[in-house]
Amino acid sequence: MTVFSLDGIGEVAPGDDLAALIAAAADGALADGDILLVTSKIVSKAEGRQLNAVDREEAITAETVRVVASREHPGGVTRIVENRLGLVMAAAGVDASNTPDGTILLLPVDPDASARALRAELRTRLGVRVGVIITDTVGRPWREGQTDIAIGAAGIRVVDDLRGTTDASGRLLTVTAAATADELAAAGDLVKGKASGRPVAVARGMAQIVTDEDGPGARALVRDAERDMFRLGSDEAYAAGFAAGLAAASASSS
Amino acid sequence: MTVFSLDGIGEVAPGDDLAALIAAAADGALADGDILLVTSKIVSKAEGRQLNAVDREEAITAETVRVVASREHPGGVTRIVENRLGLVMAAAGVDASNTPDGTILLLPVDPDASARALRAELRTRLGVRVGVIITDTVGRPWREGQTDIAIGAAGIRVVDDLRGTTDASGRLLTVTAAATADELAAAGDLVKGKASGRPVAVARGMAQIVTDEDGPGARALVRDAERDMFRLGSDEAYAAGFAAGLAAASASSS
Repeated sequence: MTVFSLDGIGEVAPGDDLAALIAAAADGALADGDILLVTSKIVSKAEGRQLNAVDREEAITAETVRVVASREHPGGVTRIVENRLGLVMAAAGVDASNTPDGTILLLPVDPDASARALRAELRTRLGVRVGVIITDTVGRPWREGQTDIAIGAAGIRVVDDLRGTTDASGRLLTVTAAATADELAAAGDLVKGKASGRPVAVARGMAQIVTDEDGPGARALVRDAERDMFRLGSDEAYAAGFAAGLAAASASSS
Repeated sequence: MTVFSLDGIGEVAPGDDLAALIAAAADGALADGDILLVTSKIVSKAEGRQLNAVDREEAITAETVRVVASREHPGGVTRIVENRLGLVMAAAGVDASNTPDGTILLLPVDPDASARALRAELRTRLGVRVGVIITDTVGRPWREGQTDIAIGAAGIRVVDDLRGTTDASGRLLTVTAAATADELAAAGDLVKGKASGRPVAVARGMAQIVTDEDGPGARALVRDAERDMFRLGSDEAYAAGFAAGLAAASASSS
């Protein structure tokens, strides 16, 4: 697998044709089976998802389905929330870095749809069958540092499900399903770099996971909250339990 | 960046010289600045970390520092625990797949030390200055599928800390620190594959993060529990809160 970034994609503005910008930057180098790793920020910009920065807290609230955890720190409060895409992220994914002064940027309305549209347009324009992943950067429980994950996808197998296959000893692999799309997003981050203005990378040599169909998209990588052992922050869950314990005691004593 | 797997590393047995096996499989292809992505399983096997499978629950308990969450399912109980390496993992990282029948495999005693030793030995043997990452596969909150992370490292910058640098608009990047070693581990998993018997990959083209010093290792990627908003499962935290709420009510009514 080779992973390289595309040079020459400048600032993206509302209404820009991303497929045209990427096709020009690729300069004939895109081939069947390539997987495009596109930073969500430029998708949002092209889709006009920019807002005035004064609305930041309001924007976060509007993007939030439920608060998962929050913590005060000297600079304010970090809210980890599940957003309308099912993604658990700090500030719901509302972004205030690498945006024009006084503005913030929302995530694309539907990153899977954005990926599908970009894929179709590149197919029409260049005649190539590529996979597309829209990436964003997230923090993680238990680990320092952030990684990129797939928040949108089209034309790739987002999970490489090995359950039901056997290992080298002939034993059944019961719990192994690699989150391929997230691993590709992470690989792309290594060559894109946050500060360098290279928002698109290409992974080549992974044609075996590129599909004819658009497929279920990155939404398939979202675990439903009710199946998640970490659906709520530890402090938040403790506080809810404490309140319920107090209420139970008062109910039984009355 | 190019990521490729090494062919020809067969079954690894206790006492095997991993550096010799890798040097033979690389067949002169390793170069300064390459980063080796080594599946922890073969490190454990070489280090003789195999046990009888009858001791599985006992082994998990022995490797556990604290239980983070647990859930019953038809096949038994999944315990997510923090192990003695600070890693939060299902079954403490004790592995029962791809091991000889009737055996289980513990993680290396000190994966950062294993990485350092492998690096030094490859330098002596081949005269190359490479980075080494020991990888393992983990599940994640909020996301379906597993990814590989770095559980041991030597000679690479495990976190690419951009805090204090500026974005393209000249604005300070305040929270961006890419978990480079985890992203490399993820990239390696894409070319290694669980079922294919290729436990070592090489990432080439990332020499800028390979260092002269061994550095802090993958331990630096572990977030301390007391700083972690998800240090305890939601159900477990709720139950602890509930008990405390009952106790508080009974203390105030007596």
